[in-house]
Amino acid sequence: MVYFDAASGEPLDPAGREAYLAALDEGWAGPDRLYREGRRARMLLDAAREATAEVLGCRADELVFTGSGTAAVHHGVLGLAKGRARAGRRLVLSAVEHSSVIHAGELAAARNGGELELAPVDVHGRVRLDLLTELLAQPGPVGFLAVQSANHEVGTRQPLTEVAALAAEYEVPLLVDAAVSLGREPVPSGWSVLAGSARKWGGPTGVGVLAVRKGSRFAADWPQDERERGWAPGPPNVPAILAAATALRARSAESQEAGLNHRELTTLLRARIPELVPDVEVVGDPDDRVPHILTFSCLYASGEALLLELDRAGFSVSSGSSCTASTLTPSHVLEAMGVLSQGNIRVSLPWDARGEDVERFLDALPDAVRAARPEPELGRESTPEPEPEPGESADASVVIDALGKLCPLPVIELGKRIGGVPVGGVLRVLADDPAARLDIPAWCRMTGQDFLGTEPLRGAPDSALAYLVRRLR
Amino acid sequence: MVYFDAASGEPLDPAGREAYLAALDEGWAGPDRLYREGRRARMLLDAAREATAEVLGCRADELVFTGSGTAAVHHGVLGLAKGRARAGRRLVLSAVEHSSVIHAGELAAARNGGELELAPVDVHGRVRLDLLTELLAQPGPVGFLAVQSANHEVGTRQPLTEVAALAAEYEVPLLVDAAVSLGREPVPSGWSVLAGSARKWGGPTGVGVLAVRKGSRFAADWPQDERERGWAPGPPNVPAILAAATALRARSAESQEAGLNHRELTTLLRARIPELVPDVEVVGDPDDRVPHILTFSCLYASGEALLLELDRAGFSVSSGSSCTASTLTPSHVLEAMGVLSQGNIRVSLPWDARGEDVERFLDALPDAVRAARPEPELGRESTPEPEPEPGESADASVVIDALGKLCPLPVIELGKRIGGVPVGGVLRVLADDPAARLDIPAWCRMTGQDFLGTEPLRGAPDSALAYLVRRLR
Repeated sequence: MVYFDAASGEPLDPAGREAYLAALDEGWAGPDRLYREGRRARMLLDAAREATAEVLGCRADELVFTGSGTAAVHHGVLGLAKGRARAGRRLVLSAVEHSSVIHAGELAAARNGGELELAPVDVHGRVRLDLLTELLAQPGPVGFLAVQSANHEVGTRQPLTEVAALAAEYEVPLLVDAAVSLGREPVPSGWSVLAGSARKWGGPTGVGVLAVRKGSRFAADWPQDERERGWAPGPPNVPAILAAATALRARSAESQEAGLNHRELTTLLRARIPELVPDVEVVGDPDDRVPHILTFSCLYASGEALLLELDRAGFSVSSGSSCTASTLTPSHVLEAMGVLSQGNIRVSLPWDARGEDVERFLDALPDAVRAARPEPELGRESTPEPEPEPGESADASVVIDALGKLCPLPVIELGKRIGGVPVGGVLRVLADDPAARLDIPAWCRMTGQDFLGTEPLRGAPDSALAYLVRRLR
Repeated sequence: MVYFDAASGEPLDPAGREAYLAALDEGWAGPDRLYREGRRARMLLDAAREATAEVLGCRADELVFTGSGTAAVHHGVLGLAKGRARAGRRLVLSAVEHSSVIHAGELAAARNGGELELAPVDVHGRVRLDLLTELLAQPGPVGFLAVQSANHEVGTRQPLTEVAALAAEYEVPLLVDAAVSLGREPVPSGWSVLAGSARKWGGPTGVGVLAVRKGSRFAADWPQDERERGWAPGPPNVPAILAAATALRARSAESQEAGLNHRELTTLLRARIPELVPDVEVVGDPDDRVPHILTFSCLYASGEALLLELDRAGFSVSSGSSCTASTLTPSHVLEAMGVLSQGNIRVSLPWDARGEDVERFLDALPDAVRAARPEPELGRESTPEPEPEPGESADASVVIDALGKLCPLPVIELGKRIGGVPVGGVLRVLADDPAARLDIPAWCRMTGQDFLGTEPLRGAPDSALAYLVRRLR
């Protein structure tokens, strides 16, 4: 198997594994204990904290270890929101934050009686600085601003220098979820709270990092616990923390070299995939992006089917398509970007990614996509264009009833039926799959047709809409 | 070193270690992923869940794994309190619950607008069923009742059969923190929520278990996260969970045999310590207790000094004395029991405890206690008893000003000065150390003097009291 889902988590780095095993023997005891085994564990924990703080660019006493990256984000968001509840209750997040940030923000807003406000992004998933400025300038003090270092689904880097300057100008603390980039990219600055996850940098599962700058207002919104400054309840997992710190140091030292290799490989993928596969949309910023992530979507394909075809061919990747998750809504990141969500695949390269594996992936992809398209011929050749009937007006709409059909079926129907509409004619697609909100406009953009908008359907639930498409060619 | 602090945590069990290493290779991926590595991790996680559920006596779909025992308790308490907030907001806990239960209960009560009510215990630390019944019968519906399986500081088993019957009678869900006993004792029944910690049964740090019976009202009071039924945010740590399950099975299979060995050794300690050390109080139930914990307190000794002396002699133990923790209040468990807190030592035997180590501990203890007593001769021989001055009345009080002096100094002063008071005379000790509230009455009980009670000191903070002691002999 070739594992291309490093952004979800990687196997434990060899240096980290060695550190873990050594610390299982030397650092298993509680570091708060006064006897020898406890003091030994404390020394290892202190060393791991110093080493990690140095990489993160903070003081050791600004850093705690949590039980996961998710916990680091949750505690960071809830602690900052509660600490700042008197200063401001509007919580401003980029619309493409990781779901853990958004869900914690929702809870924090509910608890503190505030509002969650999402800052829009451009088509590459980059936060719009102009609109972010407008949001910050609106009346009502802001509790905090959260912007990730780079996007976890499409790899686009966020403009953190400018964001940090805005945060400073409006005197709002900045929370940065740096899970995507820690160990691979230079660590951002200008934050009040920084969160990350060890399993994304080759450390073990079960370790997160949470750094809170001195002077930040930060208040526990969880049960009292003395350990880790009261910011992370439960016993610090010393062996796992030592493994995480060891892996982070090792990776940070080699990140430039590894990054060059990853960038070369994802650049190759970016260029070749649209050549090899018809009706594909590569998403995310082409240049200003983390080097190891490359994401694309395939018209007419189900993301789950594509993922399973690739698995069968020996490649492990992830997908932001709606049908691969337990919810039926497509990835909120793709939605905020307004790009195609069907047949979505994220390739994220592991640390030791090899060019030959990328070549093999490119070799296997066309067949996998073909197999994942229920109507493989769709889009491969232009559909024969029937003559319009004499006297048929452009307003004489054709209606496709795709109610109850899930992604990618509504778009497949659209692709099959557009040829039956005269150029200039309008086609109405009735659909209640939330993915259609993204995928029908994306289909129009990709195939050169004109998306006219949506109309509500009388007597139907809000999710059911009529999508109006004018045939242009 | 001889490690006698197993109740805080043990080194990873060899079978657990082996399982962890195997799962690092086989189960490192996200178990929610559809590709091969993810499916493999899912299979391991499912197997670990089945095995653990079988030991706990619950269904696999009633059990989730959390990032620590602390997290299991926090989520159990907060989830049950929120789920039951409409049914009842009085939260009834035994007064000797682990601090994680009490702190989570405090937060739950504050969030849901309820009250935390502590059920008193007897001198052995066992919850008083009569007083518990009174509490449950009081007006105002109860959200839940929390009673541990056995006490973590003194080893006393709680009467869970009777407690569960009471909970059923009053239709109140029962939360059981079974951290002390899982893997060592039969698993309790009658609970709605059960919590435990893998590091207490030879599993790795970083794994807790939280079981919630079908039909319990349970609601997330933390950010939304789909994993582990939404009860435990963050990625399940498959290798660590597999190690935990493996260790739990191994231990449960051998627990009876190991328990007999532990009981024999703690029974020996119980009998010998008072013979070897003067002015010592062994606490906890002599019979109905978990086999591996034995706790005692030494008059006139500082717990921290005693712990360090024992460490120097090669023994690792823990202490509930105030001066060993970062707070200045003594253990709330010892306080609820009303027993001596100074010079407190808990011996908790590891799984493979050996008789020769216990013998060596008994050999070393007298010298360690002597060295930890600032006035080693105190209590070793009876202080010469001065004749009362002619005309000196029993009410002519002698006053000891111990304000600002910390445990064990107020009691040491008392021991030194009691001889200067005529039999029948009253001595007033002015003290503001919170430990004095426990230790002066305990001193009276242990030395056969009469504790008359306390009086407030005018113009002094509430913590400062006059303790009145009548000399009887």
